[in-house]
Amino acid sequence: MHPIERFVAACRCQPVDRPPVWLMRQAGRYMPSYQAVRRRYSFMDLCRTPEAACEVTMQPIDELGVDAAILFSDILVPLEPMGVRVGFEHGPVVEPAVRSVAAIDALRSEGVADEVPYVYEAVRLIRRELGGRLPLLGFAGSPWTLASYLVEGGSSRNLHELKHLLYAEPAALERLLDKLTDVVIAYLGRQIDAGVDAVQVFDSWGGVLDEVTWRATSGRTLARIVEALAPTGVPVLLYVHGGPHLLGALSEMGATGLSVDWRVPLSEVRRIVGPGTALQGNVDPGILRAPVPVIREAVAQCLASHGPGPGHIMNLGHGITPDATVAAARAFVEAAQEFGPAYGGEPA
Amino acid sequence: MHPIERFVAACRCQPVDRPPVWLMRQAGRYMPSYQAVRRRYSFMDLCRTPEAACEVTMQPIDELGVDAAILFSDILVPLEPMGVRVGFEHGPVVEPAVRSVAAIDALRSEGVADEVPYVYEAVRLIRRELGGRLPLLGFAGSPWTLASYLVEGGSSRNLHELKHLLYAEPAALERLLDKLTDVVIAYLGRQIDAGVDAVQVFDSWGGVLDEVTWRATSGRTLARIVEALAPTGVPVLLYVHGGPHLLGALSEMGATGLSVDWRVPLSEVRRIVGPGTALQGNVDPGILRAPVPVIREAVAQCLASHGPGPGHIMNLGHGITPDATVAAARAFVEAAQEFGPAYGGEPA
Repeated sequence: MHPIERFVAACRCQPVDRPPVWLMRQAGRYMPSYQAVRRRYSFMDLCRTPEAACEVTMQPIDELGVDAAILFSDILVPLEPMGVRVGFEHGPVVEPAVRSVAAIDALRSEGVADEVPYVYEAVRLIRRELGGRLPLLGFAGSPWTLASYLVEGGSSRNLHELKHLLYAEPAALERLLDKLTDVVIAYLGRQIDAGVDAVQVFDSWGGVLDEVTWRATSGRTLARIVEALAPTGVPVLLYVHGGPHLLGALSEMGATGLSVDWRVPLSEVRRIVGPGTALQGNVDPGILRAPVPVIREAVAQCLASHGPGPGHIMNLGHGITPDATVAAARAFVEAAQEFGPAYGGEPA
Repeated sequence: MHPIERFVAACRCQPVDRPPVWLMRQAGRYMPSYQAVRRRYSFMDLCRTPEAACEVTMQPIDELGVDAAILFSDILVPLEPMGVRVGFEHGPVVEPAVRSVAAIDALRSEGVADEVPYVYEAVRLIRRELGGRLPLLGFAGSPWTLASYLVEGGSSRNLHELKHLLYAEPAALERLLDKLTDVVIAYLGRQIDAGVDAVQVFDSWGGVLDEVTWRATSGRTLARIVEALAPTGVPVLLYVHGGPHLLGALSEMGATGLSVDWRVPLSEVRRIVGPGTALQGNVDPGILRAPVPVIREAVAQCLASHGPGPGHIMNLGHGITPDATVAAARAFVEAAQEFGPAYGGEPA
């Protein structure tokens, strides 16, 4: 089966010869070849230089043999033209942090997606490099997750500045989320125009909310994004981290598929979500610190947990971390491809 | 109703005049009076000096009017006599990190609880200071959570060193958890001997595990702790953070009560856990950044979510953070005491 056909069919819960496998953050610091490129570019310059972004996007294709490519970029890239500075020093930094109603209202949204042409140029370069061999995923952060970086000014343990808005200035938070939703829709639309075969929206910080609050904030924006992208016909995957309590709500957003972490086994996720929505994941990335036989066993268990029904895309439950090794990632991919044919997805 | 009687009755799911209220980490950096004491003592010295620990334990009693006191200490205190150095520099530091099988086997467990007499002395001083006015809680970290600090050498985003043990050296991890379980049982036993009215075990990092793995690691040790403390007749509360997927398993540990975060409403937690187990919590601590009317509404909603059935102890879903204010914490406590009489717990 052609890899693009396989990936799109898995997204659509149609039978495939085996579940496709790729790894979140598959191009990253754990790879010596990536580190070599990073010695030539700062992280943001890597995101802004299409040839370099293309080069690192291709590294896991060659070194791991994954079944899909994902654009190398960062979820914070489209924030800069909104009117802040984005940098990385031991972690993401957004300056100035957007903490007042006035600062929210001053943020640009219209035309923002036009100002990161290097992202779409990277997509075109990668597509040329792939030559139709593999599907290419684009991605964006969810409005809630992007708002967290804008408001906190970077990573945060408890998102209390964002919670402050939520509790003290809910109308301003709503306007911020609306602006970010407009930006994300335009940004993903441009990635699709440039040729990505599917997109993933990372609601990485959605799991800190209870279901009612999540629906009223993050969920509302995700449903709008999915609806806006529907005419493109491109599969939309939603990722949430730490959201066992949000699975039911997530399944109502209209997304083609859900990418979930390892906290709930896929058998149980499938029971909650029902048929017709693809499930992506969900092995603990910590498994890449295990000996190869343990990695292979975890892959086998994950495939078996989803079972032979259609609609499984094999992946980790979170991005690869710098402490992984290329050999471990390769063992994961090889095991998924070796055991996969028993789980191709018989029509239900 | 006498506060000690009220607290113990709420733990035992017996009717009370109103749910008792206290706040996790109620003595802490958000209080100017605490900051003043901290200028005289380093954090660890504060834990090691019974008079000072007693002084800060009493601060929220006087300033917030809470219905229970909790020993001021840190979960890492009993690790030091096991053979590591514990310090605090922008966060907890454990040196040397315990990462090899040999290092695990070299850790002491027997007699460790005898080597922190200042903790039990603090309990006795606080009891004397309380003069029978309020119940006093003792506490300990769960073996899994203590193991995470020992193995990671401090806080960690993903616990990958601990996961490495889990996947690569499971027998060594089991021995480590067994040693820590022995220490926690002896340590809580000593606190009970010194006079605490209830104990809470903080499984702060349990939520990163799927249920099967949690049962085989953290859950196994918690069940042993509960069983070992049962003859004392003292209520045992278990706290887990980010564990919506563990509620069913948690309810099988035999604990008197579960302290849960805000991700799942208490109505739903009660449905999963069933009657007969107290529930403590669960307002998002971010609420303390909200205006007073929003705080009061959140308190009212939390009480209503649990409803009039017995067995609710009002609290936050996680510890107070330094960005809170005393006025906000007081508004929370006052609202809980004002609205509480409607939720005293009619016998089911």
